[in-house]
Amino acid sequence: MDVDKKYFSNITTRERAIFEGAITMGALFHQFVGTPVNRDSKESLEKAMAESLSLQPAIEKVEVEIRFDKLEESMTEFDYTSLTGDMLDVKIHAKVDDVSATIRIEFIEELNYPLMYVEDIKD
Amino acid sequence: MDVDKKYFSNITTRERAIFEGAITMGALFHQFVGTPVNRDSKESLEKAMAESLSLQPAIEKVEVEIRFDKLEESMTEFDYTSLTGDMLDVKIHAKVDDVSATIRIEFIEELNYPLMYVEDIKD
Amino acid sequence: MDVDKKYFSNITTRERAIFEGAITMGALFHQFVGTPVNRDSKESLEKAMAESLSLQPAIEKVEVEIRFDKLEESMTEFDYTSLTGDMLDVKIHAKVDDVSATIRIEFIEELNYPLMYVEDIKD
Amino acid sequence: MDVDKKYFSNITTRERAIFEGAITMGALFHQFVGTPVNRDSKESLEKAMAESLSLQPAIEKVEVEIRFDKLEESMTEFDYTSLTGDMLDVKIHAKVDDVSATIRIEFIEELNYPLMYVEDIKD
Repeated sequence: MDVDKKYFSNITTRERAIFEGAITMGALFHQFVGTPVNRDSKESLEKAMAESLSLQPAIEKVEVEIRFDKLEESMTEFDYTSLTGDMLDVKIHAKVDDVSATIRIEFIEELNYPLMYVEDIKD
Repeated sequence: MDVDKKYFSNITTRERAIFEGAITMGALFHQFVGTPVNRDSKESLEKAMAESLSLQPAIEKVEVEIRFDKLEESMTEFDYTSLTGDMLDVKIHAKVDDVSATIRIEFIEELNYPLMYVEDIKD
Repeated sequence: MDVDKKYFSNITTRERAIFEGAITMGALFHQFVGTPVNRDSKESLEKAMAESLSLQPAIEKVEVEIRFDKLEESMTEFDYTSLTGDMLDVKIHAKVDDVSATIRIEFIEELNYPLMYVEDIKD
Repeated sequence: MDVDKKYFSNITTRERAIFEGAITMGALFHQFVGTPVNRDSKESLEKAMAESLSLQPAIEKVEVEIRFDKLEESMTEFDYTSLTGDMLDVKIHAKVDDVSATIRIEFIEELNYPLMYVEDIKD
């Protein structure tokens, strides 16, 4: 079966790159939010998040930074906390044919919200 | 702050509708896969999935069907199983200005894979 | 196969009730934290959490209350937020033979931590 | 506040060790099931699972093995799959005072179920 032809011929290449990147960003957030984390485990968690989400269709690279300041803010008596969306600073690079889209999540203080948006798109 | 102007002026309305629907589909999958489910709890789970994901930006409606056949296939000795992507038949309707996009997930036997794609887009 | 005899004869009935209740509490927290929620969707989410986790072995009943005050505290510009452990007030009732154990999670201000503990055990 | 005295004096040290290990096992399962995984990302995911869950109260060590045979069985056209409970072979070592409890999950063919049980307890 030609998956692209059967399921994706109704959208443009740009739209497809945005689509795949956005799915992966939604996936990353909802898969990992809630995971126990502290300064010592931060690095292995970032690596697993990046490697696992890179497997999804059209994803070239995933860069994950768990914000240390937000991590420290929510620290508990037990020396760890649960990963929240506010701690995420992530870039997902999707590529379909000649189009590269970078999907970003970052916490926007003014909205009290970790916003997902298309940071860059090149075709 | 004008969020749309600041963060979304680099993409078209069609692209934005696809973007928001796709995020929500990735979110739905990775939030709920793993949840214990059987024929009795299927309905309340479908409802919670639909209502919670409808809250996300630009989402008008979410229709969730947990496939009973796939549910039965993976049934265990303990009369329940864990929700998998293969059981999901979901339509997410996103709307941005005059553009309506329907994002779908359904299990495709030939790919052994629950495929996410843009089922319909109207502008 | 006699599962109880093969896998659980090394622990007491009290211990088994605590074991099953504790697994289910850990499951509930990590399955649902991150779910989009607001005052309108709170009820369907509570119901799905209770019904799905009640399916696990030895669980008689699950009572879920999403704390409205904590929900409002973390509300965003977009009129919803992500479920956190701090919002959870949950009782899980496990029963094995004549032993009933109630496992509780509630946010403890002094610890800045949603504590899980055995609230009650009767044999 | 003396947390142990206030919240845990109604159970024995053995029961506490089982309680903490069981919570962590339920957490591990429901946090990570659904994560994209293949043979290349298996190792970083195992490491992140082990390190993050080791942070929880009373947990000394977590050993995670994602079963390669089960991983291959569910492989898709896209060269990755979603982590399922059936792939998990995990030992969680909890220690409270002089009591050590090992909680195990492994897939039991006969039950078509990934069973969690107390593999070993020493006091």
